[in-house]
Amino acid sequence: MKYIDLNSDLGESFGNYKLENTDAILDIISSANLACGFHAGDPMVMNQTVAKCVEKGVVIGAHVGYPDLQGFGRRKMDLTFDEIYNFTLYQLGALEAFTRIHGTRIRHVNGHGALGNLSHKDEKVAHAIVKAAHDFDPSLLIAAPRASSCMVKYAEQYGMGVIGNMFHVDRNYEEDLALVPRGTPQAMIEDEDVALARVIRAIKENKVVAVTGKDIDIAPPKRILIHGDQPKALIFAKKMKDALDAEGIGICYSADMPVEE
Amino acid sequence: MKYIDLNSDLGESFGNYKLENTDAILDIISSANLACGFHAGDPMVMNQTVAKCVEKGVVIGAHVGYPDLQGFGRRKMDLTFDEIYNFTLYQLGALEAFTRIHGTRIRHVNGHGALGNLSHKDEKVAHAIVKAAHDFDPSLLIAAPRASSCMVKYAEQYGMGVIGNMFHVDRNYEEDLALVPRGTPQAMIEDEDVALARVIRAIKENKVVAVTGKDIDIAPPKRILIHGDQPKALIFAKKMKDALDAEGIGICYSADMPVEE
Amino acid sequence: MKYIDLNSDLGESFGNYKLENTDAILDIISSANLACGFHAGDPMVMNQTVAKCVEKGVVIGAHVGYPDLQGFGRRKMDLTFDEIYNFTLYQLGALEAFTRIHGTRIRHVNGHGALGNLSHKDEKVAHAIVKAAHDFDPSLLIAAPRASSCMVKYAEQYGMGVIGNMFHVDRNYEEDLALVPRGTPQAMIEDEDVALARVIRAIKENKVVAVTGKDIDIAPPKRILIHGDQPKALIFAKKMKDALDAEGIGICYSADMPVEE
Amino acid sequence: MKYIDLNSDLGESFGNYKLENTDAILDIISSANLACGFHAGDPMVMNQTVAKCVEKGVVIGAHVGYPDLQGFGRRKMDLTFDEIYNFTLYQLGALEAFTRIHGTRIRHVNGHGALGNLSHKDEKVAHAIVKAAHDFDPSLLIAAPRASSCMVKYAEQYGMGVIGNMFHVDRNYEEDLALVPRGTPQAMIEDEDVALARVIRAIKENKVVAVTGKDIDIAPPKRILIHGDQPKALIFAKKMKDALDAEGIGICYSADMPVEE
Repeated sequence: MKYIDLNSDLGESFGNYKLENTDAILDIISSANLACGFHAGDPMVMNQTVAKCVEKGVVIGAHVGYPDLQGFGRRKMDLTFDEIYNFTLYQLGALEAFTRIHGTRIRHVNGHGALGNLSHKDEKVAHAIVKAAHDFDPSLLIAAPRASSCMVKYAEQYGMGVIGNMFHVDRNYEEDLALVPRGTPQAMIEDEDVALARVIRAIKENKVVAVTGKDIDIAPPKRILIHGDQPKALIFAKKMKDALDAEGIGICYSADMPVEE
Repeated sequence: MKYIDLNSDLGESFGNYKLENTDAILDIISSANLACGFHAGDPMVMNQTVAKCVEKGVVIGAHVGYPDLQGFGRRKMDLTFDEIYNFTLYQLGALEAFTRIHGTRIRHVNGHGALGNLSHKDEKVAHAIVKAAHDFDPSLLIAAPRASSCMVKYAEQYGMGVIGNMFHVDRNYEEDLALVPRGTPQAMIEDEDVALARVIRAIKENKVVAVTGKDIDIAPPKRILIHGDQPKALIFAKKMKDALDAEGIGICYSADMPVEE
Repeated sequence: MKYIDLNSDLGESFGNYKLENTDAILDIISSANLACGFHAGDPMVMNQTVAKCVEKGVVIGAHVGYPDLQGFGRRKMDLTFDEIYNFTLYQLGALEAFTRIHGTRIRHVNGHGALGNLSHKDEKVAHAIVKAAHDFDPSLLIAAPRASSCMVKYAEQYGMGVIGNMFHVDRNYEEDLALVPRGTPQAMIEDEDVALARVIRAIKENKVVAVTGKDIDIAPPKRILIHGDQPKALIFAKKMKDALDAEGIGICYSADMPVEE
Repeated sequence: MKYIDLNSDLGESFGNYKLENTDAILDIISSANLACGFHAGDPMVMNQTVAKCVEKGVVIGAHVGYPDLQGFGRRKMDLTFDEIYNFTLYQLGALEAFTRIHGTRIRHVNGHGALGNLSHKDEKVAHAIVKAAHDFDPSLLIAAPRASSCMVKYAEQYGMGVIGNMFHVDRNYEEDLALVPRGTPQAMIEDEDVALARVIRAIKENKVVAVTGKDIDIAPPKRILIHGDQPKALIFAKKMKDALDAEGIGICYSADMPVEE
């Protein structure tokens, strides 16, 4: 049997501002990356979101970000190694307080927004996040694309596990499996049925048709990022879950998938 | 042998703003209440302060406050039980990340500023802080005046230890051991030698002269709050340590004092 | 001809968080109270909202609040006179920068949330807001219920105009014209047609049926608060505008209504 | 007679955190750049600092910065043109509220910290700040080094005046008048007497000895940046004022210097 981890960014509401339909998306996904109060989220939101994840059996990761609520963590900031290291520790600790009272724990870490983007290509940033995660809890997993992120190098250096192989359901790939850049024509897969068919084929046959039309072999996808911030996104997420169910593809956290015989 | 816990509020610097002479005060005190980034402190300051406490053998408590950096946590805010509960958890978790990487742990909790004042007389606030501390780590101690704080009631309800009996070195007492209110003439003990003599007598004889002139019996003092934010305060703190040393009074964290035979 | 000022709280989005349907509500209302970045809003939102108000001919007021984005300004804070005075000045100045570049100006001021509630019954708060408004621009109008707010007393003391007589379209009144408190049965007028009929009658006949059933005389209503933060609220707002149009009641800023002969 | 503008960054305290000795430095300087609450300062500090500047006859400029109090505006942030434009407007408006109530006005604008550094070499940043200043008040002056800042280009484009020619009293110059970079040996002029002598000669003879030993002609200096954040800095500032007085060099805001015959 094949499995896929349906993963979503959650806990991004703040005070009076509600961002996503947490309840509806939690019925679909297997894991969530939770904001920790720096780029989004607040202690109330964190407690409620962790509680709901536990209730629905959704695995929790920490989504660490820049201390920039106004920019939603999407504005690059020039931070030192020490700043990123300490900010990551602070956010991990804060989130763990809530996982602890709900009888669960943080399983993985990844960077959000501009920090996340930078973490894949900037050695200093990757090192600071991974070292903080390691020093906090060496059993934490690092969530990063295996082939292209310098987070992976530091995860290996610190002896930490990696969860990767994200398949992008709404994006076209180049022949070398790079994503067709946003803004380029054909960057996005607009047709929902096409998108669903691609996901199923990627999981079952480990193949995807590149933007050039050529059929390409891929590593077995392990994760799909699901959006739940808009009604339309939520309907698509539900369709995908139904399609996976219909194909007998299990939905399961990356690190908990039964090993295939 | 008698012992006293010299305790100070630390980690209150923020970014470019330096508040106290952390290094100098750490040579004197036995325990510190560390700001957790809400009313003061930031992740850099927290890491550095925890590191120095560990280096100097100073016991760490969490000083939880309102999310109001501009007001330094001194402006009362009307918060719900859930807000205080979640804010306390968040701050405890954040601070624990730093105690963990430095191989130590948080030993006690108390409220800072307006939240601290309120915690002693407002049932809801006391309950929220104590329950958060309990749910986070039931071995945490609640720092509160035994005789007059409703924190103590909730500590007992949740089966948590209390550290109390703070002796105010620079304040005059009424005959009923209430502090003479600030702003009143004679509220403060201005003369340093008088202040030191009062401390020694309180510890050795368990007596203090009230503002009325009457000699009053007191419970054995366990803690003295030491300020380190100004050069003059620091000099006085040093004098007190010397006076205690001269009298053979040990300096030791409240909960770690050897039991007298 | 009769007139009414349809007024709404706007500019309450923040960064990535969108709160209200600004464009749709601006087609309906005659005046808006704009958040100034303390309890809601940010410089981007302020610029965009002011620009749209100017485009649609909507009069702008400043909605000043507590510096508490997480609490959306709804958590009471104990502030000094000087703090409220300086916070009001800061927010007025910041908003004026945007009205100036768009060729308009701030016409009125009122407090938002917990600060707004307090401003009607707390002399210190009312005084601080009115004095700040006066010192900033004595031609500003104070928006407050004439009969029941201590803002009015200070407006008179500082020689400033008042806009008042808000009619609450979704609330039941006592015989003394106090609002039936929220939470009480019958506090809210749930039936939209009843609500609309009450508004029309209040404006045309200056009468309202109290919760007791008794018909009560009221002062001519000048303003109605319109919500635009939810699809349903927006539909109701549109219905009200249509109902007013059908009755030949003009929609006009309170201070700009033609004087009746 | 020769004149020089002694200029300082002020109003950088925040809440409980006091940064500089405002009172002492105001006795020495002719102009100040005031923080506006983004990287430093708060409404209380702004009101008090403006009041003191007015009392001492010190001219006020706006020191606009990144919205990053924790980083004191010294961490570069990737902001759009619109963000910088709107942040500058917001800060100018907020500061103007305080200059207005004290009967004065903002005379010049410059960027603080990382935003300031960027404003001299990044066209987008320079353009956004200058356009915001222009749209707010076209009579504002742009404070920037004439020879090396792209702020000057935009000031000219928008028809705005420039105040420049800052002489760095504690820094060594290359032969091309670039500053010897910090961190390089001989970057700093450590000897106070040498520093003072250089200032006097620069003003009176328009000459400076470069780090190579060669005597270089310079444009007549108009401004000197004075620090007042540390006791030692303050003593040096006082010495400089005395040295200037002794030489008969007047202290005067750049834009207000009498034209020499």
